[in-house]
Amino acid sequence: MYVDPITKRDKKLSLKDIDTAAPKKVNKEEALKQQEKLEEELFMLQDLMFGAKKNSVLVVLQGRDTAGKDGTIKRVVGALNPRGVHVASFGVPTEEEREHDFLWRIHRHTPRLGEFSIFNRSHYEDVLVVRVHQLLPEKIWKERYDHINTFEETLAEHGCLILKFFLHISKDEQKDRLLEREADPSKAWKLNPNDWKERQYWGEYTEANEVAISRCSSEHAPWWVVPADAKWYRNLVVTEALVKTLRPYRESWVKALEREGKAAKAALEEYKKKEKAK
Amino acid sequence: MYVDPITKRDKKLSLKDIDTAAPKKVNKEEALKQQEKLEEELFMLQDLMFGAKKNSVLVVLQGRDTAGKDGTIKRVVGALNPRGVHVASFGVPTEEEREHDFLWRIHRHTPRLGEFSIFNRSHYEDVLVVRVHQLLPEKIWKERYDHINTFEETLAEHGCLILKFFLHISKDEQKDRLLEREADPSKAWKLNPNDWKERQYWGEYTEANEVAISRCSSEHAPWWVVPADAKWYRNLVVTEALVKTLRPYRESWVKALEREGKAAKAALEEYKKKEKAK
Repeated sequence: MYVDPITKRDKKLSLKDIDTAAPKKVNKEEALKQQEKLEEELFMLQDLMFGAKKNSVLVVLQGRDTAGKDGTIKRVVGALNPRGVHVASFGVPTEEEREHDFLWRIHRHTPRLGEFSIFNRSHYEDVLVVRVHQLLPEKIWKERYDHINTFEETLAEHGCLILKFFLHISKDEQKDRLLEREADPSKAWKLNPNDWKERQYWGEYTEANEVAISRCSSEHAPWWVVPADAKWYRNLVVTEALVKTLRPYRESWVKALEREGKAAKAALEEYKKKEKAK
Repeated sequence: MYVDPITKRDKKLSLKDIDTAAPKKVNKEEALKQQEKLEEELFMLQDLMFGAKKNSVLVVLQGRDTAGKDGTIKRVVGALNPRGVHVASFGVPTEEEREHDFLWRIHRHTPRLGEFSIFNRSHYEDVLVVRVHQLLPEKIWKERYDHINTFEETLAEHGCLILKFFLHISKDEQKDRLLEREADPSKAWKLNPNDWKERQYWGEYTEANEVAISRCSSEHAPWWVVPADAKWYRNLVVTEALVKTLRPYRESWVKALEREGKAAKAALEEYKKKEKAK
C-alpha cells in the first residue's frame, strides 16, 4: 500500500517525521493510470455494497486549511454513483448544535446501510480547535477521546466501515495555496482572514492532531496520514485506502445479493404461476 | 426519599425482592398533597433551567406492557410548561432506523440545553427485547451496555441530567390491566395480542431488566425501580426523583439568570442613553 493505516491505539506519532510530498519513487503518470483502475473497482464495490445492505462507509476528512478536503471529496464523489452518497460539512456549530453534546450533530449524518457518508471536518474538531484555543476546560475535551472511540465502535458494530484521513501538508505549501486563493476570484468565497491567524498555531495543531490520531486509531476505525502536497498522490492514497478496505467484503456482498436474487426470482415465479392458474 | 436511586454499576439486583405495591406507611391522601407541592416546585425549577440554558433533562421510562409509561408521561408533562418539553416514543424501528446503529434514532431526540426530553421506551429496548428473543447474536448486544454507558456519559458531560425509571408492576396487576384495557373501548387502540404473548417471557424480561439496570447505573445516569402497582405512588416517586435531581442546580441557574439579566439591563440603559442623546 502507498500508505499504511494506523490501526493501533496510543502509538507515538510524529507528524514532522512524515513527508508531506509524494515519494520520489512513485511516478505521476503511472499513478494516474492506477487511479483510474482503482476508481473503476471502487464504483463496482459501491454498487455491490448498495445492493447487499450489509455495510456502510464513513469517510472522515481532516486537515489544516487548504489541505485539500474539498478537492478530495470532489474526486472521491466523482468516482462514485451519487445515489447513496451523502456529504456533510461541519463548520462552526449552530446554536441548536451547541445546545447538544458534540456528537449529536455528527451522529445524524452517519450513513445508513448501503451508503457512503463523507465528512468535511468532523467530531475531531472537538478535540482540535477546542484544545488549541482552550475553548473548553481540559477536563471536558480530555474525555472526548474515549467518547469518540466508543461512538465509532457503535457504528462499526453496525457494519460501518470507517476511514479517517489526515491530509498532511507542509507550512510552505499552505502559504502558496493561501496566496493562490487570494489571486483567484472564483475562490473568493473561501477567503477567511482567520486562516492566516490559525497559521500562528501551526505547532499546537500539529500536537493536537498527533494526539487525536494516536488516541483514536483502531482496526475498525483507522487513520491514514496522507502526504497531501501533491494532489494526484493524495487522491491515489485515499482511493487505494477505500478500495483496499472495501475489497475484502466483496464476496459477502455478492453472496447476499445472490440469496436475495434467488428469493426474488422464486417470488416472481410463484406470482406467475398464480396468474396462469386464474 | 421514597425510593433511592441506583447510582453504582454492577450491584446485584433482584426485582422479585422489590415490592410492586405502595408501602403501607405511605398514606394516599397525604401523598397527593405532597405530589402537588412537588409539582409546583418542579414547574419553577423547569422555568429556571429553561432560562439558564446550562442543563437539560432526559427522562427514560421503561417497563413491561401496561406498567404505566404513558400515564406517567401524562402526569409529568402535565406538571411542566409544555414549552421546552419533547416526548419521544420508540416503537419497532423503521427501515431507516434499522439501517443505522441502535443509538442513532435515540441521539436525535436528546434534549437541548434548557429543555426536557421524555422517552417512552428507549435505547434499553436494544438490550431487552433483543436479548429475550435473541433477535441478534449475543456478541452484539453484550457490547451495548458499554456503548450505552459511554453514550450517557457524553450527554451528561454536556449538562444533561439523566433519570431512568423502571416501572415495576406485578404479574397479577398486569393481568388486571390487560383485561381492563380490553373492556374499555377508548383504549382499543392499545390492544395488542402480543402483550399476552410477551407475558410468557415474564422471567426472561425480569432478568434482562435486572442486568440492564445493574450494568447501566451511575451517579450521572441512575435508575429508579418504581413500585408501580398504585398509580398515585408511582407518580409521587417519579416526581420526587425529578425535583431532588434538579434542586441542587437551582442556585447555579438563578446566578446565571442574574448575570444575564444584568447584562441585558446594561445594554438597555446604553440604548436609552443613546436615544436621549439624539
